[in-house]
This record gives sequence, C-alpha cells and structure tokens, in this order.
Amino acid sequence: MKVTVIGAGILGASTAYHLALAGHDVTIVDQEHQGKATLAGAGIVCPWATKVDEPEWYRMYAAGARYYEELVSGLAGRGETNVGYRKVGALVTAEDPVEYDAAGERLALRTADAPESGGFEEITPAQAQTHFPPINKAYKAFYVPGGARVNARQLAPAMVRAAVKLGATFVSDLATLQLDGSKALVLDGRGQSIPSDQVIVTAGAWASQILAPLGLLHPVKPQRGQILHFGMKGADTSRWSVLLPMASHYLLAFDDSRVVVGATREDGKGFDYRTTCEGQHEVLTAALRYAPGLADATLIETRIGFRPAPPGLRPILGPVPGIEGLVIGNGLGAAGLTIGPYAGRQLARIATGEAAEVPIEPYKPAA
Amino acid sequence: MKVTVIGAGILGASTAYHLALAGHDVTIVDQEHQGKATLAGAGIVCPWATKVDEPEWYRMYAAGARYYEELVSGLAGRGETNVGYRKVGALVTAEDPVEYDAAGERLALRTADAPESGGFEEITPAQAQTHFPPINKAYKAFYVPGGARVNARQLAPAMVRAAVKLGATFVSDLATLQLDGSKALVLDGRGQSIPSDQVIVTAGAWASQILAPLGLLHPVKPQRGQILHFGMKGADTSRWSVLLPMASHYLLAFDDSRVVVGATREDGKGFDYRTTCEGQHEVLTAALRYAPGLADATLIETRIGFRPAPPGLRPILGPVPGIEGLVIGNGLGAAGLTIGPYAGRQLARIATGEAAEVPIEPYKPAA
Amino acid sequence: MKVTVIGAGILGASTAYHLALAGHDVTIVDQEHQGKATLAGAGIVCPWATKVDEPEWYRMYAAGARYYEELVSGLAGRGETNVGYRKVGALVTAEDPVEYDAAGERLALRTADAPESGGFEEITPAQAQTHFPPINKAYKAFYVPGGARVNARQLAPAMVRAAVKLGATFVSDLATLQLDGSKALVLDGRGQSIPSDQVIVTAGAWASQILAPLGLLHPVKPQRGQILHFGMKGADTSRWSVLLPMASHYLLAFDDSRVVVGATREDGKGFDYRTTCEGQHEVLTAALRYAPGLADATLIETRIGFRPAPPGLRPILGPVPGIEGLVIGNGLGAAGLTIGPYAGRQLARIATGEAAEVPIEPYKPAA
Amino acid sequence: MKVTVIGAGILGASTAYHLALAGHDVTIVDQEHQGKATLAGAGIVCPWATKVDEPEWYRMYAAGARYYEELVSGLAGRGETNVGYRKVGALVTAEDPVEYDAAGERLALRTADAPESGGFEEITPAQAQTHFPPINKAYKAFYVPGGARVNARQLAPAMVRAAVKLGATFVSDLATLQLDGSKALVLDGRGQSIPSDQVIVTAGAWASQILAPLGLLHPVKPQRGQILHFGMKGADTSRWSVLLPMASHYLLAFDDSRVVVGATREDGKGFDYRTTCEGQHEVLTAALRYAPGLADATLIETRIGFRPAPPGLRPILGPVPGIEGLVIGNGLGAAGLTIGPYAGRQLARIATGEAAEVPIEPYKPAA
Repeated sequence: MKVTVIGAGILGASTAYHLALAGHDVTIVDQEHQGKATLAGAGIVCPWATKVDEPEWYRMYAAGARYYEELVSGLAGRGETNVGYRKVGALVTAEDPVEYDAAGERLALRTADAPESGGFEEITPAQAQTHFPPINKAYKAFYVPGGARVNARQLAPAMVRAAVKLGATFVSDLATLQLDGSKALVLDGRGQSIPSDQVIVTAGAWASQILAPLGLLHPVKPQRGQILHFGMKGADTSRWSVLLPMASHYLLAFDDSRVVVGATREDGKGFDYRTTCEGQHEVLTAALRYAPGLADATLIETRIGFRPAPPGLRPILGPVPGIEGLVIGNGLGAAGLTIGPYAGRQLARIATGEAAEVPIEPYKPAA
Repeated sequence: MKVTVIGAGILGASTAYHLALAGHDVTIVDQEHQGKATLAGAGIVCPWATKVDEPEWYRMYAAGARYYEELVSGLAGRGETNVGYRKVGALVTAEDPVEYDAAGERLALRTADAPESGGFEEITPAQAQTHFPPINKAYKAFYVPGGARVNARQLAPAMVRAAVKLGATFVSDLATLQLDGSKALVLDGRGQSIPSDQVIVTAGAWASQILAPLGLLHPVKPQRGQILHFGMKGADTSRWSVLLPMASHYLLAFDDSRVVVGATREDGKGFDYRTTCEGQHEVLTAALRYAPGLADATLIETRIGFRPAPPGLRPILGPVPGIEGLVIGNGLGAAGLTIGPYAGRQLARIATGEAAEVPIEPYKPAA
Repeated sequence: MKVTVIGAGILGASTAYHLALAGHDVTIVDQEHQGKATLAGAGIVCPWATKVDEPEWYRMYAAGARYYEELVSGLAGRGETNVGYRKVGALVTAEDPVEYDAAGERLALRTADAPESGGFEEITPAQAQTHFPPINKAYKAFYVPGGARVNARQLAPAMVRAAVKLGATFVSDLATLQLDGSKALVLDGRGQSIPSDQVIVTAGAWASQILAPLGLLHPVKPQRGQILHFGMKGADTSRWSVLLPMASHYLLAFDDSRVVVGATREDGKGFDYRTTCEGQHEVLTAALRYAPGLADATLIETRIGFRPAPPGLRPILGPVPGIEGLVIGNGLGAAGLTIGPYAGRQLARIATGEAAEVPIEPYKPAA
Repeated sequence: MKVTVIGAGILGASTAYHLALAGHDVTIVDQEHQGKATLAGAGIVCPWATKVDEPEWYRMYAAGARYYEELVSGLAGRGETNVGYRKVGALVTAEDPVEYDAAGERLALRTADAPESGGFEEITPAQAQTHFPPINKAYKAFYVPGGARVNARQLAPAMVRAAVKLGATFVSDLATLQLDGSKALVLDGRGQSIPSDQVIVTAGAWASQILAPLGLLHPVKPQRGQILHFGMKGADTSRWSVLLPMASHYLLAFDDSRVVVGATREDGKGFDYRTTCEGQHEVLTAALRYAPGLADATLIETRIGFRPAPPGLRPILGPVPGIEGLVIGNGLGAAGLTIGPYAGRQLARIATGEAAEVPIEPYKPAA
C-alpha cells in the first residue's frame, strides 16, 4: 500500500518505520523548521509515577514504556545503535511530604504490574546523590531502576533512517492537503501530487494548519515549552538517573556531559517561537532548587518546542470520519516521547487495515 | 478600518506602514520562521538595466525604484534612520560584448526618463575598481549614480516599528484563514479570531498554504535562493557600488565591511531549506569570477530564502474575486526589494477603497 | 613613526585611530577570539552618578565622557556614521532611599561642572516610564539628559576602519612579543617580525600572556561578565534612556528593538568562557526586578566578556620602564567603554612623544 | 606524581588519560577557544597508503593505527562507548594511473606487516559505490578493510572523562608558564600556581605562545585547515568507508548521516580564524570532483582548525633540555588523529620516568 506520512517527529518517524517494516511503500514528507516538539523534547520514560489516573490513558502510557525495549532492539538489528535511549533509573521525589507519600503509593501499585519497571525502593539523600550528583542534598527519593531517558533528536532520525533502508522515501518539503472528491490528496511544495492510498498526518502542533484545507477544525493547540541544556565538562553523565520532583519540571542527563532541565508549559501563546525572560528565569529557578549542583554548569542552549496539546487529556489517533484515506495521530502532549513509538506502531496498523493492539476507540478523531 | 496583514516581509511591512499612516487600525501577524525571502535577500534598486521588457511590468518596476526616496525620508521623519538604504551607484557590465552593448542601450533609453537614476556613463576598469574594489580587473562598466542598495533586514522591521508607533499591533504568531460565509476570517495560533474588515495576505512563498483553507489554488511557488555574505575586515564598504554583471548573479556591499553575492535561482525544490554543496559552489564560483578580490574575504554566512515566484512574469496584487474582505499581494519574485515598498502602498490603498496610483488591473488575482 | 598596536578592542582601536590621524604608520594586530570585553560590553556613558570618588580617577572618567562628542563628530567627518553612540539620557535610581539621595547629591555636585551632562532633574515614576518603558513602575528617578550609550561592537570597528582609511594596516593574527636586547619585538603568527618603533599593548585581559615572554608580571586579571540581550519586536527602543539602579546591574537599549541587561562581575574565574546557570539566573532576576516590563521580552543572546580588572582602582597607561619602545594601556575594567576612546588618544600621544592631555603619572606601569 | 597537562586536544587528552591510568595525580588545563585542530579535524586511520616514507616516522604512524583497538576497548571498559571510532574500511584511489599503481604498491608492502589492516583488494567502481555511495562513478579503488575513522570531538572528551573518573582534575582556563629557577611553573588565569612535578605542554599550534615566557623558541607553526561537513538526511552513513584519493583532500562519513570533506592546508596564515571564499571553493570543488553524489547534500558547517605543523616531517616529543619538569608533545600535523592517542601514551611514560615503547630520540625537542 502507498502511504504518505506528513511530519517526521517521534510519532511520524515511528509510524513510517513500522509501515516500512510491514512492507508498505512509504513516503515521509517533513519540513525543516523551528519549534518541533520532538527536537526540543527530552524524554523520560517512567509512566509509573505519573499523577494521570484516567485508566484507559494510563494503560496506553504504560504500554508506551513497555514497548521501548522491543523498539530499541529492533532498530539495533537494523544497524541503528545510536538511538539515545538508556535505562538509567528514575528518582521520584517531592518536597511536600504528602505529595511524596502519594508518589510512593502510586509506584507501589503500578510497578507491581510492570516488571519492566524493575520495582522501586526508597533511598537516602546520599544514595540519591550517587544516582544524580547535582541533586538537592536534602532530597530522599524513590528509585525506580527501569526508568529510562530518550534523546528524541537521535531516536526519530534513527527510525527515519531505518525506514529509508527498508525502502521508504524521505522528502524535505512542506506538504499541503486538498480534497479530491471525498479523498485526501497530498501536494508537495511544488504543487505536485504525491500518490497515496493513505495519508497519515502526524504534524503535531501544526496539524490544524495542515488539515484546514480539508475543512477540518482540528482541536490540537501548541503548548510552548522552553527547555534548558547544561554542560558539565568532564562529568560522565551517561548513567545519571532522571529526576522527577513530582512538579512541573524535571531533570535528566544525556551522554555527552549534558544535563537537561525542562520545561515551561505555556498555553495560549500560539506559535510564538521565543526564549523569554520569564520562561528562562522559571526554569533556571527550578534547576537551582532541585539540583543546586548545577550552579556552575554551563548553559549550552535553550530549546523551544510546541507540544501538541489535545483539548482534553487524551491523544487523537485514528481515521477521520467522512474523508477517505486520512488518518490522524496527534495530541500526545508532554507524553509524546513515552508513547510516540508505540502509538506510531498502532497508526501504521490502523492505516493499513490491521487491528490495533490496544483499544483505540477512545482516541478516534471527531467527525 | 480594521485591517489584518498576514506576513511582515518587505511587502507586508510596507502595507502595514501605509495603512497605519492613513489612520487605519492595523494588526500585523507574522511568525518567526526560516526561509523568508525578505530576510535573506539583498536588494539592488536599479531597474533601468533589467532585461525585463514587458512595458506594464517595467513601469511598476521603475516606479518602485522612484518611490524609495520618499519612503526613506518619510521613515526618517518618524525616527527610523537605520533603514539600510543607500544610493551607492550601480556598475552595469557583462562579459559578452553583445550583452554589454545591449545593457548600454537599455540604460540610454531608460535613464533618460528617470531623473532619479542620475543618468549613466561608461567607465574604465580602473574607475570601476574605485567603485567596487574587488571587481575583476578586466571589467569596464556603465556607472549609474542613482543605483542603490537596500538591506531588507533593516528596512522591513523599520516599517513595522513605524507602523507600531502609529498604533498598529504586532503579533508573533501563525495565522490561519477560514471562510465565514463569503468572508475571510483570520484565526491566531490559539484559534482565536482576529476581527478584521479586510485581510491582506502578504505571505510570500507560503501564501498557498495560508489560502488553501479558503479553497483557493494560489499559483505562487517557492524559488530557492542561496546567498552568501563575505566580510572584509577593516574595509569601509559603505559606499561601494552594486555590481550587476547582467547574468544570474550580482554583488553588493553593506555598511559593516560586508559584501553580498547572490544568488541561486532554484525552482522545483519546494520548501527545502538547505545550503547545498552545488548551490554554494555555484555562488562561490561566480564570486571569484566577477570579483577575484574576494578570494581572501571571510565567508560569514549563507542565507536561504524562498522567493515567491509568480506563474508568469507579473506579481499578483488585488482583491480576491468571490471572497469578501480578502486582498492578496504576492509574486514579486526577485524584484521584491525594488517593488515591495511601492506595491505595499498600493495594497494599502486598494484594501481601504482608495484608487491605486498605477493601473493594477494587470495584477489582479484569478478567481 | 612605525607603531604596532596589539589588540583592537575599544582602547586599541582608539589608539590606532588617533595614531593614524596624527600621520603615523600603524599596524593593528588582533586575533578573532571569544571573550573580548569590548565585543561583549554595552557602554553607558554617565560618569556623574558613579560611586567612584577617587578624584584623579574621576577626572579621567569625566574626561572620557566629555570626549565622546568630539570623537563621534570626527568619525562622521570620515564617513563613519554607524558608531552606535547616542545621547539618550540616563535614569539614575536606587531602591534604598539613602542610596537614592546620595546619588542625587553626587549628581548635583558633578553635573554642575559638566555642561555636557545637561544637568539633571528628579522625575516621577510615570515620567521614568516614558524614558524606559519596561522600568519597575514604583521607581522615581533622576534624569540626566546628557547620559549616553554606546555599542562597542559598532564603535571599535568604526575606529579601525577610519584608521585603515588613513593608511593603517589591519592584521588578523596572534602577536607574540620577544626581547631584542632591551627593545620589544613583535612577531606575527608565522614568527615573522613586524618592524615597529613603538609597540602598544592594548590586549585587555590577555595582556599578561602577551607580556610574559618579556619577563613582565602584568597585574591585570580577567573579570568575567555575563550580559544578556533581549528583543522587543516592534518597539522603537532607539531613544530609550539607560537605567542605572545604583547597584551591580544596569540596563540600556540599542536601536534594533533590543534591551541589554548587564552584567555579572566574576573575579577569580580566570578565562573560563561560559554562560553559567547561576550567572544567567542572577542577571535575569535583576532584569525582572528593575524592569518587570521585560518579562515577555525575547532572550536573544548572552555575551561573555572578560573585563581587564586592574589590581587597584586605576587603569595602567604608559611606557614600560626598562623596555624600549613598549607602551601598555590596560585595566579600564567596567569603565572601559566610557574611558576607552579618550585613553586611546592619550596612549597615541604618549607613544609618539607628545604630552598627554591629562596627568598620566598616576597610571604608569610598574617597573 | 603531580602532573599538569596543558591542552586537552587529542594528544593532551590521551596523555592525561594514560597518566591517570598509571595512578598519577593529573590536572588538565584547557581553555575553550576557537581553532583547535582536534575539534575541527576528522580522523582517518589508514597509515598504510601514505606517501610518507621516512621509516622512523612511518613506524610511529603505523603504531598509532595499531594502538586504536586497545585504546577503544580500554575506554569501553571504563564506560566510554561513544568514542567516535569505527573500522569502516578505506577506499584508496587516484585519478592518475601512475599514482594509483604506486598506492597499490605501498599497500602491498605495508599491509603485509600490518594484520590490523586486514590486507587489501582492488575493487570495481560498482563495488566502490557500495562502500561510499556518493563516489565518482569512474573510480575503481583499493579497499582496505582495517581502515577506520575517528571523530575527535567524541574521542578527546571521552579520554578526558575517563581521566576524571580516575581522579584527574579538569580546569577550564588559560595556563601561563613561568620559570622558577630552572623549573617550569604553571599559573592559572588568576595567576595562582598549580603545583606540579612535571608539566606537559600539548597545546598544539599555540604551544609557541605558551612556551615563550620560558625563553623557548618553539618551532611549531599553525597550518590552517578548512573542513566541510555535509548532511545527507535519511542516509545511514555509519558504515561508509573513508575515501583517500591520494591527493590533498579526503572524505569520510560520521554516524549521523554526515559526510566530511577536508581540508585546506594553508601555511603562513598565522592564527587567522576564518572561512575564506577561496578555501571554501577549493574544498567544494574537491567534493564535487571526488564525490559527485554530494551535489545535493546539505552544507552543515565549515570547521576551522590550526594544525600544529612541525618544521620538518617529524613531531616533537620529549623533555625539554635545560628546563626541569617540562615535557613537550607537539607537531603531529595532519597525522594527529592517527598518532595522537599512542603518542600521548608515550608522553605519559616519558614524563613519569618510564621508558617509551618506541625510540623517541628522533623526536626530542631542541635545546
């Protein structure tokens, strides 16, 4: 089947990879531009501590985490070993004792059902410092060995490369949709049509603009995130755990002596691509509070990403009623790097007529 | 009248400025993104040598050049003195003697009717080197004193600032259009409507995407240009003439010891934002051929811009038939920096019910 | 006379310009590298409010400010009009009432002797907001009309270009000194000697390294400054006053819708070229305190500069005892952009055997 | 033993790592600045085809290549797996048949003694294209399986991190040397002494400046290299061979869909840190000639490095006669990434009184 995927973020890249794995004829159209959530985001894979308690959605969230091992080993089997994923363990903590205890309870409940989490244990501040040296010296924590982090700037291109090796075509361009009778038609930046049996729109925060020519009012909105990267020259950060203070911000490390602190969650800013004075201040204040050991770290860069924020809690995944050959995947929000690969696998199945591996009814697009 | 201008390149900025000058209530919506032709382009204002000989279009081209003095003095009167415009003279030359003589004939014919050109004279290679020191020492040239250059990265923001001082509102966001009955409705990135009596789309190469939700098939396509900037530390380049070798490429200087060499003209590449191996090689080869004195200059940066290329020779300027309150200005192509300010003034007049100062019938959008 | 100037920051550029003006044969050797104080620094020219009260030093400071008008008009006469200097007025204020009153008393005393200051007046918060819109709405201030700001990234190259036009040679290279008997010898990066009757070392924080091969223990040390630049799109900032809250930080605007907030003063960090977590946080906190209107401004960049900090209060200016043909200018510290041009003029005189216009005995280098 | 290493390029990083491995108390002083050869250079490890035929020097060159496997596995054992080294094979070719045959003869002679080379075989153009897809389709080649490439931006920091894990201290600062009687004394950027039994200067092109205060005339000069990086989105370049056209330029790939083409060899330019018009043109012309498949590749960046070029063919390695506690390693020139790690191991031995593993007499510094 000829399938065109519009948008090569974590979700689109995974969709294309799984389509190519299944032998389909895939074209990926993606334009270089600023603000892509995948390129800005730092991924923490540790669903077991989340406050999200909607059961359907949590099931998807947990499945996303569980799928990572299989994904990574499949990519390795195709020569893609630099995917930015590592099980470094997660430190779950909170300053408020009530919050702290509640997090422990959630972990107890959920890790029991999730062998990939490796369970959890409470650790002392001194132990926490061995897992994440710059941490606030007052913090004890719950340590979850199966927590992982993923660098989406490595993972998404790796999945695209793997798809291309399997025969997919990558086009660096801006796609436009058009209605051809009741069917979705994709045009490239020259106005040439890209023949497709199915079109999958995984354009994140920009999906609304992509879908507008079809008369669709797509409800996903951009949520701006400002995320800071710090360097700690000479430090081997490659095994540092992720730090979840059960608040809006989080910390993790990348291999190259780098620590990432994220992120603002700014709704109602539209596509205003900017590092702001107060946004930067907010994240730096969090960094110094949760990890005073970062005081002398080098501020390397600030990344800006527009997360695709769904209208409610849930993502949107599925065929669009009333339009032939059009599938949407969007609205993963802050969970995108946890769920993206698994959700992409489901989109690939849905678009090509296979059954999804989880109930996707709750996620279907509105008519 | 409430007018929303989508796109703040040279054309949109001028439109907004002239609307604000005329007392209208202007909102400018423009998104920070890569590839804007205005930000990449280096402007040469010297229409008298052009090979374009379609009379209607040449008339507009010449009027664009003539208008610059009035524009610049009007902006200066509002405190905007850094607009990047300077009459430095133009050197018109060609390697092929037939081309060279033809250029001289065009100049003779056209400068006679254009007192702002200051006439022209043939000069020796030695004289040419005083006007543009790095020039090929073999080149004699026609010198046109009224030739000018403009840095659009300074001029467009200056017009926006002047508009804001006159009461306009600037919004950094991605606008989306929608049909509300037969009327164009603008939404910002949050999906909120921006109330407008008239909407003017000056979105350049991206207009097709902006207009698609209205069911319009807009014919302007992106033409990629790669343009190189060189530094010559210590050199006072501020009075160097522009160099027009009557070929695809051109050279000019900016104030800050900078020489600009442009540009590739790449059709059919869509929105593929990239500096390419062969594009870079093409422009460097031209630089070393026309101006060997650049051999040791510093390559500072390559800018990429998508010129809005019209389907034929002419731009598109005017109200859209069948949609209420929608005006388009687009397709200025490589002439954008010469014509943009003047064309923006006409768009402002058209949108608010005043007569244009030139016949605009030839430029009206197709239904 | 053949004079080589090592270092083309504000002081070296001025020295070279004044030497060239006086007809000398000048070679400027300067290497592109990071951390130059001149390129990082934002200059406020308003000596009259300073807490510095050492009379000799204050006299030099005030003379530096007074000289600016002459410098700028001299450069304009040579075609250099983009020098980044503008008299926009200064707002002097303080949160502590005692500090505030003391500042008023200093201004009363000093502006009386400095007609170029334009005197001063106390203004209300509402008035202060007209001079610097983002200012804390609670702040009244003293307004000094003659206060100015200077963008050293424009001024220093303009002086170099003017020197080159007058016959000076600019070399982009790393100079090394060597003793040739009792005389200083300059070598370029290839080890070739640059013939010089006099060598003037204006290498700022790096002078100690430059002078070491001569056996000199030069006492100036680098003081790191992290300085933040904010953008306010659409705002005409070109006439905004500078804001001096009589504390470690300060604010000013540049022409291009840009506001600058400076700066950390970090001693004992050596040449550690980094934007740090806590340094960035410190300046952002100051920005939001003194100018809450910056909250939504765009953080454009952080510049890092190593100010040349003298061992005491005073700069070092003059010939080096015991070495023939060697003059040092250094240690202007945070006052560099106020004093630099005037001090350079004095260095040019001293090196070529003319008397300085101020007593320079207090500034002479140690043996 | 307390050892201070000045300069953390490939040679200094290796020296520090081997010192730390041997249990010494190591301080590494290195300043962030532009132009470091290690950071710019792309390393090809394939000594067997080189035209260098001085036997002593070739022995060192070959030993450098042989040592890589041991180095990489040692680092992996310490958790450093991202070192940028991979045995991807080398394609040795030449346009001139005489050159081509001579290369084949050298390979025959040398690979016989070097099992790590894996031998070599002549391959057809079609086979060459499978090893390096963008290669000129006319080229047959000799394929050397043991040829490798190394990304020094990964390898040098990995050795530093490994040293730090073993107890070394990393200081980001500019070191200055001074004579203390007959002994070398290191000062940091604040002028504080760093106690050291031995000082090892591995400062590359800058060593001359570092050593000047000791009265040494160090003969190594900077040789500028401009090196271009191209992106090929979607291509899995991770196993592409290196391409040695037996000319001044070479090509290789990095893991991330990146191809590197190097480099100019510019002597006599001093420390003139610039990408130049003709330098860029030279490398692009080579790229299009040897690998026309790069025509549409993305030009990502140009790196500038100053290779430390020795006065003759040979590097300088050893203690400095007449100064106590001072060892120099320098002048590896274009061979730095092949020999650096092995030479660093020898420096570590020499500085701490162990015998080198190769005769180092030929490399000893002049008095």
